[in-house]
Amino acid sequence: MPELRHDPIQRRWVIIARERGARPLQFQGELRFPRNPACPFCEGMEGTTPHEIMALGPDGRQPNTPGWELRVVPNKFPALQIEGEPDRRGVGFYDAMNGIGAHEVLIETPRHMLHMAEMSPAQMEAIFFAYQTRLVDLMKDPRFKYVLIFKNYGADAGATIAHPHTQIIATPVTPRTVSDELASARDHFRLKERCLFCDLLAQEMDGGERLVALSDHFAAICPYASRFPYEVMVLPRRHAHDFALEPAERVRDLSRIMHVVMKRLRTALGDPPFNFVFHTAPNTNHHMRRSNYWDTISHDWHWHVEILPRMTQPAGFEWGTGFYINPMAPELAAEHLRKVQVEA
Amino acid sequence: MPELRHDPIQRRWVIIARERGARPLQFQGELRFPRNPACPFCEGMEGTTPHEIMALGPDGRQPNTPGWELRVVPNKFPALQIEGEPDRRGVGFYDAMNGIGAHEVLIETPRHMLHMAEMSPAQMEAIFFAYQTRLVDLMKDPRFKYVLIFKNYGADAGATIAHPHTQIIATPVTPRTVSDELASARDHFRLKERCLFCDLLAQEMDGGERLVALSDHFAAICPYASRFPYEVMVLPRRHAHDFALEPAERVRDLSRIMHVVMKRLRTALGDPPFNFVFHTAPNTNHHMRRSNYWDTISHDWHWHVEILPRMTQPAGFEWGTGFYINPMAPELAAEHLRKVQVEA
Repeated sequence: MPELRHDPIQRRWVIIARERGARPLQFQGELRFPRNPACPFCEGMEGTTPHEIMALGPDGRQPNTPGWELRVVPNKFPALQIEGEPDRRGVGFYDAMNGIGAHEVLIETPRHMLHMAEMSPAQMEAIFFAYQTRLVDLMKDPRFKYVLIFKNYGADAGATIAHPHTQIIATPVTPRTVSDELASARDHFRLKERCLFCDLLAQEMDGGERLVALSDHFAAICPYASRFPYEVMVLPRRHAHDFALEPAERVRDLSRIMHVVMKRLRTALGDPPFNFVFHTAPNTNHHMRRSNYWDTISHDWHWHVEILPRMTQPAGFEWGTGFYINPMAPELAAEHLRKVQVEA
Repeated sequence: MPELRHDPIQRRWVIIARERGARPLQFQGELRFPRNPACPFCEGMEGTTPHEIMALGPDGRQPNTPGWELRVVPNKFPALQIEGEPDRRGVGFYDAMNGIGAHEVLIETPRHMLHMAEMSPAQMEAIFFAYQTRLVDLMKDPRFKYVLIFKNYGADAGATIAHPHTQIIATPVTPRTVSDELASARDHFRLKERCLFCDLLAQEMDGGERLVALSDHFAAICPYASRFPYEVMVLPRRHAHDFALEPAERVRDLSRIMHVVMKRLRTALGDPPFNFVFHTAPNTNHHMRRSNYWDTISHDWHWHVEILPRMTQPAGFEWGTGFYINPMAPELAAEHLRKVQVEA
């Protein structure tokens, strides 16, 4: 019997249809990447990107020259433009604003093809510290309500360049999915005076059947109402609402558990396309703080990372309905991910 | 300057980033279909499907034999199971229910490869009447809160079989996207005592720049805050909340405008994968009617069809954020679709 499960965070139902694919899946397709003979993100190609915003490398290296370990540059084809004001306005019946924001690319390594699972712990640490640095910096701009950190890996996950990179987009609005989750968390807190995610995690730690990995400060689980096979959520074990505020020790620990999850996914599944997305707090640094709206956010919100392997072309109707059919029970996925042997 | 546009129905913001792709697009990929040498939907293969629920064909044809023009059969690998009760329950912190429902396949034609654009007007009519027949029939079952009618065309749109078909899924819950839209429509009606969609359509008819086609009873527009290039919405010109209640003349007219839209999309874009989804009223026939919840639905809800060409692999992060970047201004898409020459 298929089962309908309710996601308490997104407040949507998902069909877990085990009968449609009970065995652990392995990625069957070919990892597609668009061809790009002259990769703009490779070492030596620094002149082809806009000027770098930050970089890690040896002392004395000149900006936009080789020798770096990690670079952040503006996206050459940005979805949003850095100059200007949002200028929110009515257009007859509709609403519009200017597409201002930031669109940055974090080039994770000078090496053209390197899966996160294959990186060194030091490289992973450098990447996650850089995420936080950019987040903190972009949140200084009062025009930006939200900063999205996300990674597309493989053409089927939306990547247009194979070279390992993460995108960072600062937006003048909070994305719909995040504001929906903020609302769920707020409603739960009002009712229970407890954090929704802390309650969720308590139940997951209790049963353990959907647990993938634990580190000192983080837990990785396959969500109860997973939309996709092998979906993983990584969240702080102790309540925390804002990735920007995490101390160095916890950022380092996050890079470790993400490394573990990447290795387990890669070993279990082959080399599937995937996305990951940070759901951190909106930018409460500025004028928003003066309203009451964010008064309880440090209590009711709990930041986390969603990792979405793209094993299957999801039935397209999900776009039109928000209704997901997942052929893989999250308990089976978690068990598979726990059991695969990976190097420490 | 990119523009952020607010979708008043889904209440989400979309980035219209013209700079990222200002020219009319043509589908560049290969229309992928999974291989299926022995197609279970072809004529002569009636024995390979579950027993038919309805069919159109000559008088005297025996069920599950050749000679049909259109067949509806249960899905052989259903996402939901027909027998049983929902049995909604708590699972510790979580909520679950049994995956009961119906999952039917409407085989649109005996011909193995035939785009809707290439079908005869009579065939299109037959298909849309069959949609309504199945909808009306499934809504007699009080266990079903919603009936989804949707089509996946091409592997990149989630189709697993090339033979032209539509899926019909009856669910024990209303899909999230539809319930979000119902809430927007209800809020608008409370504020204005007018239908949200009627207001939207009035503005679209006034300007006309996003209009694709008009028939006697329907309008086809590219939505103001389109998520995807060449997204099209078809909606009744006069207020109507339930596709199941439409008289025959209007169903016939719907099949005509859908035919026109299919021809225009096919001529303008090549042969891209696409989805379409009906957003009709939830099943208010039964116990729901006894609550006050649906009292105003005939006033505040306006049924429609969403058509979503899958021209581009959408940036994967949309799954995690609900934030869409559309490189194609809907005004340009509508102009292109209006201008292409198609046979009447």
